[in-house]
Amino acid sequence: MKIRVCLKDMVPYSPGKLKPGAIKLASNENPLGMSPMAADALKQSIGSVSLYPDGGCVKLKNALSKKHNLASANICVGNGSDEVLVLIAGAYIEPGDNAVTSQTTFSEYTFATKLFGGTMKYAPMADGCFQLDAIASLIDTKTKLVFLCNPNNPTGTSFSNDELRAFMKKVPKDTLIVLDEAYREYVDRSDFPDSISLLNEYDNVIILRTFSKIYGLAGLRVGYGIARPEIITDMEKTRAPFNVNSLAQAAACAALDDTDFVNKSRAVNREGKTYLYASFDKLGLKYYKTDANFILVYINQDCVAAFEKMMALGVTIRPLRSFGLNDAIRVTIGTPEQNEFFVRCLEKVLGK
Amino acid sequence: MKIRVCLKDMVPYSPGKLKPGAIKLASNENPLGMSPMAADALKQSIGSVSLYPDGGCVKLKNALSKKHNLASANICVGNGSDEVLVLIAGAYIEPGDNAVTSQTTFSEYTFATKLFGGTMKYAPMADGCFQLDAIASLIDTKTKLVFLCNPNNPTGTSFSNDELRAFMKKVPKDTLIVLDEAYREYVDRSDFPDSISLLNEYDNVIILRTFSKIYGLAGLRVGYGIARPEIITDMEKTRAPFNVNSLAQAAACAALDDTDFVNKSRAVNREGKTYLYASFDKLGLKYYKTDANFILVYINQDCVAAFEKMMALGVTIRPLRSFGLNDAIRVTIGTPEQNEFFVRCLEKVLGK
Repeated sequence: MKIRVCLKDMVPYSPGKLKPGAIKLASNENPLGMSPMAADALKQSIGSVSLYPDGGCVKLKNALSKKHNLASANICVGNGSDEVLVLIAGAYIEPGDNAVTSQTTFSEYTFATKLFGGTMKYAPMADGCFQLDAIASLIDTKTKLVFLCNPNNPTGTSFSNDELRAFMKKVPKDTLIVLDEAYREYVDRSDFPDSISLLNEYDNVIILRTFSKIYGLAGLRVGYGIARPEIITDMEKTRAPFNVNSLAQAAACAALDDTDFVNKSRAVNREGKTYLYASFDKLGLKYYKTDANFILVYINQDCVAAFEKMMALGVTIRPLRSFGLNDAIRVTIGTPEQNEFFVRCLEKVLGK
Repeated sequence: MKIRVCLKDMVPYSPGKLKPGAIKLASNENPLGMSPMAADALKQSIGSVSLYPDGGCVKLKNALSKKHNLASANICVGNGSDEVLVLIAGAYIEPGDNAVTSQTTFSEYTFATKLFGGTMKYAPMADGCFQLDAIASLIDTKTKLVFLCNPNNPTGTSFSNDELRAFMKKVPKDTLIVLDEAYREYVDRSDFPDSISLLNEYDNVIILRTFSKIYGLAGLRVGYGIARPEIITDMEKTRAPFNVNSLAQAAACAALDDTDFVNKSRAVNREGKTYLYASFDKLGLKYYKTDANFILVYINQDCVAAFEKMMALGVTIRPLRSFGLNDAIRVTIGTPEQNEFFVRCLEKVLGK
């Protein structure tokens, strides 16, 4: 069998490595676990797993449309945002097309684009930030998709509402802007884009959200896209019928209502961020101020070696070699105890 | 945005319709629910859903390789067999290629093929059975995949080991045979193909199995493919990293060990089959002898109208119009009580 030409140089995703018993600060999960309301919903739903899930995600779409003040027709639900990315690329990328994103961002944008025979162009990044002008200048007549991660994984930086709106004006109408806001709920800055309001002005925007981060449901796989109905209809043609499992649907519906849990998660993150900033300052390490639930910090030594040492000490973080950074790690902001343990391990690895 | 040309005439899957409170014999689920061992595993795993699933499905692949006496490298796990089909097509179908299957079979073969720009060719069916010779004669130099559903959904018929082996001899080496055995565990005939042994003789075979049917985990979405490692490696290049949720992995591992539940499910199915055959005989209805957990029966009237009437009476079945049969329904074999209720409803609809 001859594999498709476009897959020949496809590099598989390298997930965060695990060590049983170690504290996991490697994958930007919620250190508080899942919403208790979601846990209750899961327990109540176990009895129905022998039946196929609702292929239309009707209840979940209703709950989401209510929350965002939109119609169900504006929403497409996927087996994690990972799948939503594949649905988007599957709808629009013909072989020979291209997509544009930045250096040092989430690798699955490239995966989805290449899966359908497209190529990815990367704009340079400046001090951990997306350069929207540089991204706009890479768009050509074959550019079907532009992927913007805001806040960006793995740098934690974000761009503002004004910056996004200035960028949108430069984008051709037949290029779809994919705004991945997986970490949006952790953002504190008041000038963060009100991205959903862009749908009133532009046809060519889709916003991605997930239940894997602040809602604490990474293991269940639920993400969704918000766009004009025409875009959703196109994506639905690329979706397999029962893509979102029934427990994920039940838990996501419940989690959406649990504002206490979301607020608590946000508070724990804010507190941890302050503590980690102070610790990195004390250690003289450069880092980016983050709008997410993780921090990129430069440790001035080989990140993979440091990762191995820290894992041996009992904490896993993410070395950023696969993102092209040899001396940087990404650490998820944990509970106060987890953060303190991480800092002690980091100090040991740095010989301080 | 311009949708991809190959998606223009893509018809979305039409799932079995539901009515709250009605007995559901529409989707070939296990009427006994799920394995109690799987239920226990689910309860124990709920606490970990805030963490990403094991992207490599290591434990589940180990369990499957032990069961089938194969290596983990022979196995690819998907978000249901639906996704495994997409991974296969994603690995091998270039625009302009084609695939071959039969009339009146599972629609997702066509979906997966079209998603990557391929076209599907359909061999005629004879009295509910795959005509393997007709299928072989449709293979040309552009045929990358052949989809065989054994036992076949929705007719329930199957082909033998000898028939399959004779067919394999006619297939070019660079055409991959996809043997979908979703219903295999219900088969009683002793000459059913020992498909896994084909891997010793042929490079170009992949066998699909699922946890959605006899294992009772349709809502969780787990299916897998078994093939030579070279095929699995190609498919892995098209797989998103966390495609199988963590609860599905835990439940599938446990279900695999629950031979009591599988045996009980098989016995209930066998009993129901005998009862339904006798009932259809009494009513003078034509049906196909089934090797699966459902029966296709011709009811000599419009199947959609009959479906509506039966739903009003409290049972849902599958009208087969979307499979091209206007006067046939597919009924899942249920518990004795469900089967009796279904027969009473059918008699009313037939005016008997």
